[in-house]
Amino acid sequence: MGAEGITSREEDYSQWYIDICTRAELADYSPVKGCMVIRPNGFAIWENMRDALDRMFKETGHKNAYFPLLIPKSFLSKEAEHVEGFAKECAVVTHHRLMNSPEGKGVVVDPDARLEEEYIVRPTSETIIWSMYRKWIQSYRDLPLLLNQWANVMRWELRTRLFLRTTEFLWQEGHTAHADYDDAEREARRMIDIYRRFAEEWMAMPVRMGRKTEREKFAGALHTYTIEAMMQDGKALQAGTSHHLGQNFAKAFDVTFQTETGAREYVHATSWGVSTRLIGALIMTHSDDRGLVIPPRIAPTQVVVVPIARKAKEKAEVRQVLDKVTAEWKDGFTYHIDEREGLTPGYKYADWELKGVPIRLEIGPRDLKEGHMLAARRDRERGDEDHKTALRFEEIPNRIPRLLNDIQDDLFNKAKARRDARTYSIESYDALKNLVEEQPGFYEAWFSEDEEAEKRIKDELGVTARCIVASSEEQEGQCFMTGRSTARRVLFARAY
Amino acid sequence: MGAEGITSREEDYSQWYIDICTRAELADYSPVKGCMVIRPNGFAIWENMRDALDRMFKETGHKNAYFPLLIPKSFLSKEAEHVEGFAKECAVVTHHRLMNSPEGKGVVVDPDARLEEEYIVRPTSETIIWSMYRKWIQSYRDLPLLLNQWANVMRWELRTRLFLRTTEFLWQEGHTAHADYDDAEREARRMIDIYRRFAEEWMAMPVRMGRKTEREKFAGALHTYTIEAMMQDGKALQAGTSHHLGQNFAKAFDVTFQTETGAREYVHATSWGVSTRLIGALIMTHSDDRGLVIPPRIAPTQVVVVPIARKAKEKAEVRQVLDKVTAEWKDGFTYHIDEREGLTPGYKYADWELKGVPIRLEIGPRDLKEGHMLAARRDRERGDEDHKTALRFEEIPNRIPRLLNDIQDDLFNKAKARRDARTYSIESYDALKNLVEEQPGFYEAWFSEDEEAEKRIKDELGVTARCIVASSEEQEGQCFMTGRSTARRVLFARAY
Repeated sequence: MGAEGITSREEDYSQWYIDICTRAELADYSPVKGCMVIRPNGFAIWENMRDALDRMFKETGHKNAYFPLLIPKSFLSKEAEHVEGFAKECAVVTHHRLMNSPEGKGVVVDPDARLEEEYIVRPTSETIIWSMYRKWIQSYRDLPLLLNQWANVMRWELRTRLFLRTTEFLWQEGHTAHADYDDAEREARRMIDIYRRFAEEWMAMPVRMGRKTEREKFAGALHTYTIEAMMQDGKALQAGTSHHLGQNFAKAFDVTFQTETGAREYVHATSWGVSTRLIGALIMTHSDDRGLVIPPRIAPTQVVVVPIARKAKEKAEVRQVLDKVTAEWKDGFTYHIDEREGLTPGYKYADWELKGVPIRLEIGPRDLKEGHMLAARRDRERGDEDHKTALRFEEIPNRIPRLLNDIQDDLFNKAKARRDARTYSIESYDALKNLVEEQPGFYEAWFSEDEEAEKRIKDELGVTARCIVASSEEQEGQCFMTGRSTARRVLFARAY
Repeated sequence: MGAEGITSREEDYSQWYIDICTRAELADYSPVKGCMVIRPNGFAIWENMRDALDRMFKETGHKNAYFPLLIPKSFLSKEAEHVEGFAKECAVVTHHRLMNSPEGKGVVVDPDARLEEEYIVRPTSETIIWSMYRKWIQSYRDLPLLLNQWANVMRWELRTRLFLRTTEFLWQEGHTAHADYDDAEREARRMIDIYRRFAEEWMAMPVRMGRKTEREKFAGALHTYTIEAMMQDGKALQAGTSHHLGQNFAKAFDVTFQTETGAREYVHATSWGVSTRLIGALIMTHSDDRGLVIPPRIAPTQVVVVPIARKAKEKAEVRQVLDKVTAEWKDGFTYHIDEREGLTPGYKYADWELKGVPIRLEIGPRDLKEGHMLAARRDRERGDEDHKTALRFEEIPNRIPRLLNDIQDDLFNKAKARRDARTYSIESYDALKNLVEEQPGFYEAWFSEDEEAEKRIKDELGVTARCIVASSEEQEGQCFMTGRSTARRVLFARAY
């Protein structure tokens, strides 16, 4: 059932994922260890994600800025938990010049060009940004300061996977400064909710939203909020995080402000980010053995038209009709007409299915006479009752946008139904242990956040606490590990 | 005449430039040597530039992609002229891990984490991109391949200047592959013409377009095309370049394709780029001693409204009217209402003049009665006849877009008149020598491109050949240095 060159999901889910990435030309391996190339098909999806998120950020008062790629090594020592938590595996710049090799072949590093202090290629930008905030923030009038940056970052990963975990990746990182705890807390929650909306409304990817446990939170944060999506194989994927950083970075970089009453206080911080990892999440939420499935709202091309005509005269007739009817399409949806020569319609169908275009319009000589085109939905299988619909030319400008909406909704509902069906309520460690191998999914339980118990679950089962689900504050239950009474309902899963 | 904190241009042009960058909050110095921070006011301009250029690239069939930040050191040796020409001063990554200092204080580079082969932070991406093109290009069907990348790059500069020359900068780099010489040549010329149109139509910055001399062309190129703008101080600024690279990179990375007749041939290449340097060019083309002047088409905010009202009742009345009349503005232009408390209208006027907003609308209690607002043009001085115009509320949706167009046109014409007035035709070295100190500007001359002569002009006068102007092919003249007959009319200038 898999398209040519695509391993089926059942056979090998990991290989299927790689096949989708490479065969749909989303990404490719590069000669730089752990780094990928994002090809035009992948980058166009990222651009649409970026633009949608960027609008949401700006609508909530955020502005974009750009900070240096390199961070002085000493900055990483300033916030102790931060460096302890993750900043060790990173690219280190030690020299600033090459020279011709004394042996006359190629270039070598010039030993005289050693830097006094090494620089780190940013793994994240809290430290460099807060060193600037010290300069920019003086008074309560300067707050809140709501900045975001679209940038590349590097973390030297041992095991990498296209989009999901690469040494270099693209992301946005918001860094905000606030006058008090409450305002920072509101911001951290506002942003995770924007991520939730983006995931659900644009990516058609349902997510569970909540706070990370102490063990799983970001190094240096008071709270980390997260959205967690379920992939088709039942594993969780952390799709975005938002951190309330308290005054830790303000203290590390001595960022204080004068309050309205004239006192001096440390500033409160948040940071939040999503990355090109989302493209991996998108693939593993919707795609199938025939290739990529892209939700219409973020599809670079929403409709592809495949003309079916053999003779020159037929081709000319189809072309003439297309010229006429497509004039009205431009404002309603994006489309592409596939007029490649020497390829059969069947080849083209498979090719566009592989690339994930939501709707295919077929038009041949017989359709010309009928005055319609056949619209085929990418999210349906051949043989499904609503796989193909005949649309009269004049209906297309109205019907296609509605059909795109239907596809968007159906993709979301399908993913949500799958997730809900695979979300299990558990009441004991043994129940978790039994389920985890046989029925991969989300496991929800009352959990007291006991650190020892959480470590045991991770070490023995490879299962982590994904988040304390947002609805957990209302009632209490008995912790499935310690038996203690707790208000926290926690989501567990194996994760990417 | 300079605004508070801004050195006048007459007093010190360099300092004036820095004052504009920092006081208008376009950029700031960072703790990383030679790197700047692009602040929101500066980044919003870059976003508008990027979006306009990106549309032009896509309209001409280009797609965006993303390639790795790091380049294996050995790649730089592959194209000999390329590395010889400029790739030496660059950031070198030698290690991939930090560790806690054995002395227990801070972090140090882990000596065990030395990379087998060093990586270079990309100074430009020809090499890494062509290493991928080898994989992607097999047949004439794969050509032309028209990719662009928006990215950060690093060149370790000794002397840096905000926007104009920084160790890290943002840019776009187009890299295209073609089946033959002519197609690559067309592409290189098409792209420099897109840059010209962008500079003139969006930035209101007139440019001279032409080919670089052999001496000044890009290392590894057959031809380099350039656009050159004149700054207010008469110096030239190279604002964008487009290179026809011939088959050099294809040969270095062994990129061949099968032609329609079944032969194998090396691919032909171009590359082209503009950078955040354009923001520096923008400033030095239009701004004045009161601050920034931004052409309306790329101004993040085109209109600022300053309500003039002291009493609470007046404020409420102004607010009420604004709520009503601004409802119609949104589609016509971008605007911001400055309702900051505790600041005088005069302070706000100066502040928005500093920040370069093209039109200020003033509205006070008296204007309410008259049913109009006063529109003040940023590009006019107080006392100029057309500095302020009264616009009736109902006229605003129509009149403001026209006024913005007028400002755009006037800025271009003013810059063009200045440039033309300072473009001198010269016929001897002595003439050039005399002019260069007293009358900074562009010097046009018949020039045979004699390498020795060109070197002498640069060494003795600090003047470089900016480009062979496009109109030079039609007639001949006598070279001002060698006396030889030549068809080349060349533009000389001191340059940024």
